[in-house]
Amino acid sequence: MMPSTPAFTTRLSEAARTVEASLEALLSDKAAPGEIARPARLMAAMRHAALGGGKRLRPFLTIEAARLLGAEGQGPLRAGCAVELLHCYSLVHDDLPSMDDDDLRRGRPTVHKAYDEATAILVGDALQTLAFEVLADPATDTDPAIRSDLVLGLARASGLGGMVGGQLLDLSAEGRYGPAEMGEADVRLLQMMKTGAILTFSVEAGAILGRADSAARQSLVEYGRALGAAFQVADDILDREASAEALGKRTGKDQEKGKATLVDLLGMEGARRECRQLVEKAHASLERFGVGADTLREAVRFVVERQV
Amino acid sequence: MMPSTPAFTTRLSEAARTVEASLEALLSDKAAPGEIARPARLMAAMRHAALGGGKRLRPFLTIEAARLLGAEGQGPLRAGCAVELLHCYSLVHDDLPSMDDDDLRRGRPTVHKAYDEATAILVGDALQTLAFEVLADPATDTDPAIRSDLVLGLARASGLGGMVGGQLLDLSAEGRYGPAEMGEADVRLLQMMKTGAILTFSVEAGAILGRADSAARQSLVEYGRALGAAFQVADDILDREASAEALGKRTGKDQEKGKATLVDLLGMEGARRECRQLVEKAHASLERFGVGADTLREAVRFVVERQV
Repeated sequence: MMPSTPAFTTRLSEAARTVEASLEALLSDKAAPGEIARPARLMAAMRHAALGGGKRLRPFLTIEAARLLGAEGQGPLRAGCAVELLHCYSLVHDDLPSMDDDDLRRGRPTVHKAYDEATAILVGDALQTLAFEVLADPATDTDPAIRSDLVLGLARASGLGGMVGGQLLDLSAEGRYGPAEMGEADVRLLQMMKTGAILTFSVEAGAILGRADSAARQSLVEYGRALGAAFQVADDILDREASAEALGKRTGKDQEKGKATLVDLLGMEGARRECRQLVEKAHASLERFGVGADTLREAVRFVVERQV
Repeated sequence: MMPSTPAFTTRLSEAARTVEASLEALLSDKAAPGEIARPARLMAAMRHAALGGGKRLRPFLTIEAARLLGAEGQGPLRAGCAVELLHCYSLVHDDLPSMDDDDLRRGRPTVHKAYDEATAILVGDALQTLAFEVLADPATDTDPAIRSDLVLGLARASGLGGMVGGQLLDLSAEGRYGPAEMGEADVRLLQMMKTGAILTFSVEAGAILGRADSAARQSLVEYGRALGAAFQVADDILDREASAEALGKRTGKDQEKGKATLVDLLGMEGARRECRQLVEKAHASLERFGVGADTLREAVRFVVERQV
């Protein structure tokens, strides 16, 4: 596959810069209207968790899907930040000692290492709440129907029937709660829930803000699903291949914990083939949008080729 | 003060029964539309956390405030359940070993004892998400402006500038993060954030669903604030007085951890006086509503006299 074009790379890093600035503003020490006060230690730990890192892939998808439909500015930016806050909360809680027990994240100490475990739990809790606060705020969209659609979508993608449910399945897959027999369908369900649902919603949020009709929204959801699945297969391949140095975190972790991945089930060649098929599927879902969707087309290639 | 009237007690237990049934339905193993699947272990642990206990004071306040304004049925019931789910999430996380480290809650093992720590973290996370999912669902109100108003209110009351922020202040008050000098203003701020904000929102949610005009909404918010403050002073008094048997949990915990309470700051007699003043203040806030608000008047007396 081709490397990303300079235009794409510029757009991605431009979006990351805007998202960073917006997250910084959302995580300031100053209380928003309706809040009582923001404790300094909590805010510092939340900034540690959410600022200064990451490709900001999820907000990028929200921003680009909205732009495809003619929506730009604060709305898609804020919705993208909400998804990113949700994502950051999940990382903070996943890193906890009783979960994946990770000391490093993006080469820096995880929140429970830099602060303490209680603070890390509260940081995750408050990042989740803030995601919903941002979506429900009239600054995100003047139409309350759009705002509650966003809230409902994020909640369904991230809660018991989405990301959190997927994390529980992931812990079960380690054999913590009895013998874990993971077939291909189980691995796919786990991945769709744990990482796919939020990636799909990142795209759908752009469709909601762009007032997509139901056919366009459905196409974008299908694009998001294919991208999410491709992301996960690529991650499984990466986990097997990459060196610890290149990733800044421990690798081969799934193997170490005895968890089945798609590479185990399909073989390395099968996994690579599936990756290519998913890229094609994602591209096919964008057909109706013409050249305007080229950035989203590149995004799915970027996702399967990312090195970090 | 007088004991609760039979009419009040009936209403309270009637509401608790309806809330219990509604929570049971919300926490079934069957995935809602837009959710992928609900893992059985997660659902069982969530039911352990949220079902079979508690006075359901918060939903009762939502239901009664809405009823005062002529709103009844699914809307107030669902909004009340959302507040209760939020409350239950906070209890599950507060009980964790790195937080308050409690083994018992309402005389039953806490979630991390009955299951494990990772499951308890995920249970809290998913209960929080479900609270927002319930509020944003059209089944709660057909008007999306009402739904996003509810989401925004709950988020502000429960996040970094409300309940979670208050929990961080509470941990700081134990001296975990350096010497803790708690003056009266600090203790009041902590209590307003940790428990007051959600109690206030419980009432405000009823006002929102009942389409209160801004004056009526403000009166109900003031009632909620007075009730929340009274709840906390009563809790401080109870914590000092009650026996472990009567409460089914460890008591004198604040003293044990060296945390200042309003009883320390005002003395037992001063705390009792403040309680009475807050009851009067709450009653005064309801003046405009006449006899229709008698249940809410009794609720604040109930709150200061509760034995469990």
